[in-house]
Amino acid sequence: MRPSGIVTITTDFGHKGPFAAVMRGVILGRLPTAQVVDLMHEIPAQWPPEAGFWVARAYRYFPAGTVHLAIVDPGVGTERKILVAAVDGHFFMAPDNGLLASLLDAATEPAVFTLDLDRLRKYGIDAPSNTFHGRDIFAPAAALLASGEASIEELGTPTTDWIPGWLDEPDLQGQKVTGSIVTIDSFGNLISNIDAAMISGFPDPAVTIAGRSVPMHQTYGRATPGDHLALINSFGVVEIACAEGNAAESLGLGRGAPIVVTATAAA
Amino acid sequence: MRPSGIVTITTDFGHKGPFAAVMRGVILGRLPTAQVVDLMHEIPAQWPPEAGFWVARAYRYFPAGTVHLAIVDPGVGTERKILVAAVDGHFFMAPDNGLLASLLDAATEPAVFTLDLDRLRKYGIDAPSNTFHGRDIFAPAAALLASGEASIEELGTPTTDWIPGWLDEPDLQGQKVTGSIVTIDSFGNLISNIDAAMISGFPDPAVTIAGRSVPMHQTYGRATPGDHLALINSFGVVEIACAEGNAAESLGLGRGAPIVVTATAAA
Amino acid sequence: MRPSGIVTITTDFGHKGPFAAVMRGVILGRLPTAQVVDLMHEIPAQWPPEAGFWVARAYRYFPAGTVHLAIVDPGVGTERKILVAAVDGHFFMAPDNGLLASLLDAATEPAVFTLDLDRLRKYGIDAPSNTFHGRDIFAPAAALLASGEASIEELGTPTTDWIPGWLDEPDLQGQKVTGSIVTIDSFGNLISNIDAAMISGFPDPAVTIAGRSVPMHQTYGRATPGDHLALINSFGVVEIACAEGNAAESLGLGRGAPIVVTATAAA
Repeated sequence: MRPSGIVTITTDFGHKGPFAAVMRGVILGRLPTAQVVDLMHEIPAQWPPEAGFWVARAYRYFPAGTVHLAIVDPGVGTERKILVAAVDGHFFMAPDNGLLASLLDAATEPAVFTLDLDRLRKYGIDAPSNTFHGRDIFAPAAALLASGEASIEELGTPTTDWIPGWLDEPDLQGQKVTGSIVTIDSFGNLISNIDAAMISGFPDPAVTIAGRSVPMHQTYGRATPGDHLALINSFGVVEIACAEGNAAESLGLGRGAPIVVTATAAA
Repeated sequence: MRPSGIVTITTDFGHKGPFAAVMRGVILGRLPTAQVVDLMHEIPAQWPPEAGFWVARAYRYFPAGTVHLAIVDPGVGTERKILVAAVDGHFFMAPDNGLLASLLDAATEPAVFTLDLDRLRKYGIDAPSNTFHGRDIFAPAAALLASGEASIEELGTPTTDWIPGWLDEPDLQGQKVTGSIVTIDSFGNLISNIDAAMISGFPDPAVTIAGRSVPMHQTYGRATPGDHLALINSFGVVEIACAEGNAAESLGLGRGAPIVVTATAAA
Repeated sequence: MRPSGIVTITTDFGHKGPFAAVMRGVILGRLPTAQVVDLMHEIPAQWPPEAGFWVARAYRYFPAGTVHLAIVDPGVGTERKILVAAVDGHFFMAPDNGLLASLLDAATEPAVFTLDLDRLRKYGIDAPSNTFHGRDIFAPAAALLASGEASIEELGTPTTDWIPGWLDEPDLQGQKVTGSIVTIDSFGNLISNIDAAMISGFPDPAVTIAGRSVPMHQTYGRATPGDHLALINSFGVVEIACAEGNAAESLGLGRGAPIVVTATAAA
């Protein structure tokens, strides 16, 4: 796999400190030409599933060979492992806490490794802090992959075992899928984990969120202002929106809200 | 016009998702050396005028040949057009919803085009989502301009017609200008749409905001702490500040508040 | 000192405007290959000490020769000076308002200069606004240093005199240090100004924050969820955390809270 020289960073660090910036500094110290992209830093604190959701949905818009770091790491300083994987032409690195589980479980032949701290020492990655592995391990290891100085095989030990995801995957029963809201964007759109592919064979799909029926549209612009609608959003999952409004506020719903899609006509 | 290789992005996406980051990924996929700059992402949701204001005031601090994307797009998925323009040595691309109207109306000889989706197909820009044109159309088209792979003429059809701006332009009557507050910065400064040039001939200008008189100063540092003052800010418009305080909070005013500047002495 | 081509920016501008972005535009206009890094922009408004704290703690994670701009500038437009310094292989530039005092006071042989606006004119830096020196002076001067076009000696006049810091430095009396909380991160961790080196000789150190005893641990992961703990954080200072919680909220404490570390066993 040929590296693109790009590293993305997804964290729950927020913007009230230089935490992501010093990771960028460390990467630039090893690869001065790196293109480092902040994917997002407003993952809810200590909540790996949302980081895993967005990384899995966003990575394909970057060039192949990009290294995606995702650091939501309640177990930092314990014995938890760090996973580094090659999936679909991209690299991924995250704590082994379920963050990458959904992506790895769905991949056909993922190459998954456990980062080997002993091997990192020969690249000058050593004596990390017990509290900021993002800066002390992830960032320099990402630079090694992004520069091509090290391969994923040189940094880790193969594994087929990882901590499972924290959230249930959507449940498909005949022509009914039950999923849940995993995140909310700045417009108040409620974004679910139900992939378009799961309902692509449903004739005239009907959507129910927290017991309320919502019609399915092709785009935001086709509904009357104030009306709620469901659509397949631009990341390929079912989303609940409010035309010219904020669905999360007007429905009073948030992360975890149950959403059901059923077929209403004969296939 | 020679491209600078720089693309700026202005949106109402906020920071609660990877939306701007995936645009950056798409641009880097087509132009790996691009310098992509987040101009700002905290435009109030679905409010094009503020994006237009900031893009028009900020672009000149970037090198000539920079591509400025502004995506505040309540009409995404409807038949609304996309404008791409060359003004004052810079490229601008935005939905045709009034966002760019103020900039284009004020330009002497703007070259304005409607983006032609058919022509984009030959560059591999196709089958966009109905909900995220920023990623699927704006970003790749910006990369074409920023790399010099396509000219503005190759991407669009000339037009002299665009949707007007949503806000009234300041009204100049003799030696009196009536405008309004268009945005508020992180310090609580109330920033108006009254350009310094409109009042440059006013001897001893007097400023009234929402009926309250405020003295005009050269700089923040010349007022007594807690006092309100008006000044020409660093972007060349009249601003209301509170010395060592937050004017928006202490005056209880926000976007849309009326502001009047009059000459008080004989010219 | 050989420049790295990297410029970091620390401000209290927040994200509600294009203020940091236009600084980036100005830097790129003079040095198109610059790597510009937003260190952070959420310093509390007009509060230089927190900017100084983070710059002093973060700079070492960037390559030597990096230019660090810190702009928290309540005195902009008054006669306040601008300091530019070379410390530990890095460049620093900030208003002379105490922001850099702690860093400069602790340095062994800092090379400190007052920026000379007359000399900047020959580099085309002129007629700055009275309100946005970040864009009009700091950014272009940083580009001169980052590109190697000018040395620090060419931009300023040597000085050994600067405005003192706004906060007391930690007070070390025998085996007792009294400091204070200087910032809070997105997880609610309370970060103090007590450096690990000050207490490295303390056997079995005991920590008291606002009168409450907190045990000292090696890492977040070693405490029972909900318990408060003290630790040396990844930037080498004493921090108060709440395991799987938010210490600032659960303790009801914030910036300025007093923290005391004492030795409890014989050395």
